[in-house]
Amino acid sequence: MKKSVEDEFSFIIEVSRQFKTHHNAVIVPNGDDAAVYRPTKRMDQVVCVDTMVEGVHFKRETMSPFQVGYKAVAVNISDIAAMGGIPKYFTVSIAIPPDWSTDELHDVYAGMKSITDEWTMDLLGGDTVSIANHLVITVTVVGEIEQDVRLLRRNAQVNDIVFVTDYLGHSAAGLDMLLSEGHSTNIHSQNDCSTPQDQLDDTKEDSSEILFLKAHQMPKPHVKQGRLLAEFANEHSISLNDVSDGIASEANEIAVSSSVDIILNAEQLPISAALITYAKQRGKDVMEWVMNGGEDFCLIGTLPERIFDKVKQTFVQNGCSIFAIGRVKKGNGQVWLHRNGKQTVVQAKGYNHFTKS
Amino acid sequence: MKKSVEDEFSFIIEVSRQFKTHHNAVIVPNGDDAAVYRPTKRMDQVVCVDTMVEGVHFKRETMSPFQVGYKAVAVNISDIAAMGGIPKYFTVSIAIPPDWSTDELHDVYAGMKSITDEWTMDLLGGDTVSIANHLVITVTVVGEIEQDVRLLRRNAQVNDIVFVTDYLGHSAAGLDMLLSEGHSTNIHSQNDCSTPQDQLDDTKEDSSEILFLKAHQMPKPHVKQGRLLAEFANEHSISLNDVSDGIASEANEIAVSSSVDIILNAEQLPISAALITYAKQRGKDVMEWVMNGGEDFCLIGTLPERIFDKVKQTFVQNGCSIFAIGRVKKGNGQVWLHRNGKQTVVQAKGYNHFTKS
Repeated sequence: MKKSVEDEFSFIIEVSRQFKTHHNAVIVPNGDDAAVYRPTKRMDQVVCVDTMVEGVHFKRETMSPFQVGYKAVAVNISDIAAMGGIPKYFTVSIAIPPDWSTDELHDVYAGMKSITDEWTMDLLGGDTVSIANHLVITVTVVGEIEQDVRLLRRNAQVNDIVFVTDYLGHSAAGLDMLLSEGHSTNIHSQNDCSTPQDQLDDTKEDSSEILFLKAHQMPKPHVKQGRLLAEFANEHSISLNDVSDGIASEANEIAVSSSVDIILNAEQLPISAALITYAKQRGKDVMEWVMNGGEDFCLIGTLPERIFDKVKQTFVQNGCSIFAIGRVKKGNGQVWLHRNGKQTVVQAKGYNHFTKS
Repeated sequence: MKKSVEDEFSFIIEVSRQFKTHHNAVIVPNGDDAAVYRPTKRMDQVVCVDTMVEGVHFKRETMSPFQVGYKAVAVNISDIAAMGGIPKYFTVSIAIPPDWSTDELHDVYAGMKSITDEWTMDLLGGDTVSIANHLVITVTVVGEIEQDVRLLRRNAQVNDIVFVTDYLGHSAAGLDMLLSEGHSTNIHSQNDCSTPQDQLDDTKEDSSEILFLKAHQMPKPHVKQGRLLAEFANEHSISLNDVSDGIASEANEIAVSSSVDIILNAEQLPISAALITYAKQRGKDVMEWVMNGGEDFCLIGTLPERIFDKVKQTFVQNGCSIFAIGRVKKGNGQVWLHRNGKQTVVQAKGYNHFTKS
């Protein structure tokens, strides 16, 4: 598996060539000391960064190289979506250990190419270095946002409706499937590179298994949903987060930032029948997955009650979902779960990589 | 050394607070899903990314935590300098293994704070994750550049003068000092955090030892020199690279990108008496350090002969150095070294981290 210097350099040059530039705004593309781009008038720039570490954020047994590349970009696009922005540019830094083959690295880049083509994003630069153990990928995404759109955590107001934009807990169920013994892991790995779009399209006839695995291995960032909310944001105060750490953690972030309390209603949470069935089958607590599973990468936020129906109508017209799951109340930054007539405090434990260290 | 979840989060919040925002252009600072900034009119955005891996790009024996943080940002600023740009914003992603203490991590961030304060840069976002072994830091820097300034590798023209902006090989000598047995390593580590500026200021009375160690541990990016060259770039074709991989490699990049040959004259290369003395003392080949040592982080480039005197005058007036070291000739992308009446091909071997894997 050991790679020569020549191999590495030809690899970098070759994979970089596959990322063609889409935007005329890229004036000096990836390849010089730095890339140069010209921002759009009347738009601000939105920037975020996320890192995925082998053994911490993914294992080779649970994610194919293609999926690792895809997801490393997806989690960043999701942060741009949570600001209501349009993802446009990205940089990639990858630290490669000797046990990753050139073919596997090609698949990592194929995964990144698949999702960045899907969102018409341009590679601005990268760095490829070696490391002793464990692949590390850091992706930075630059997006654009109208100058009057701010979908911030601190925007929640008393009496707002709390919403999410998708069913919850599917990613956690997918990870459980992949980690449970005897399960056929990594069902997408065989044709990952050939037909990434096909994999996304065939959701229509997904079994719950494929649904859960996709949610974990190839999450789809809710950029469209963020853009729909952005249409309302210049006139209304809307708070927004992406569900990277589970709704317990994300709702706590919004409550603390906005100095309000949030009441979540258990019976309103969008939980699929498939999830309930699978959790029962595995003897797991479905609410744990829904509240703290994390990595669902849909959006959670708050908006004024008076616009909820109009927002929902807009979502439906655009083929998107939005679910009311609770209320904002006067308070000092706590989240409560209302369930079976009782109300309990929801801790922000969420999905935390440090608990694994 | 093992850290609890609470420790990690309070650490992140605490260090983030230390990075105050300098620019009004930062509209949503670090802390939400992504940061938002508004670009300056008539300026384009310049973006670069670089990663430093423990055990590959630095060892704990040769770099203090403060220096690791400082240098991780410095190498990126150097890329912005090589485009003639002004560094303005940055993101940091850090993967932390269990054997790095909270105090050491504070020192890493103190190093980043020192250099980003020096260049008035704003933190736009970060990610802090765990990793099994070896610290990994990825820094992305966004800078600005006038819309008519392009200092690209492909800009070299036949008959241009080849130049560098500093003495060469000092960083390689510093690394040699640190790796040689019996040497007192890491002389800056004791007061790194207390007086980083003092360390830079005392260059005046540097012994060659301190000079070499600083070149390796706390390289000073040549932003000022890049900006001086930018003043000439709207009227003249100037190529530019930073010397991250040694001038052999950087000159080859320029020659290939510009489809020209480059002739370097050995007797023109700026080699300090201190370097010659130290190389002799250590039985090392001084030319190897000068040509391939790398990490000098000054600038190498080409400019038309007719403006060289004017450029040099501008540099001197601003307290900067520029040295003519060769000529651009008609050719197909090769670099030659003229030495003792003989001319030999210079390979682009440079400083390559993969040779260590």
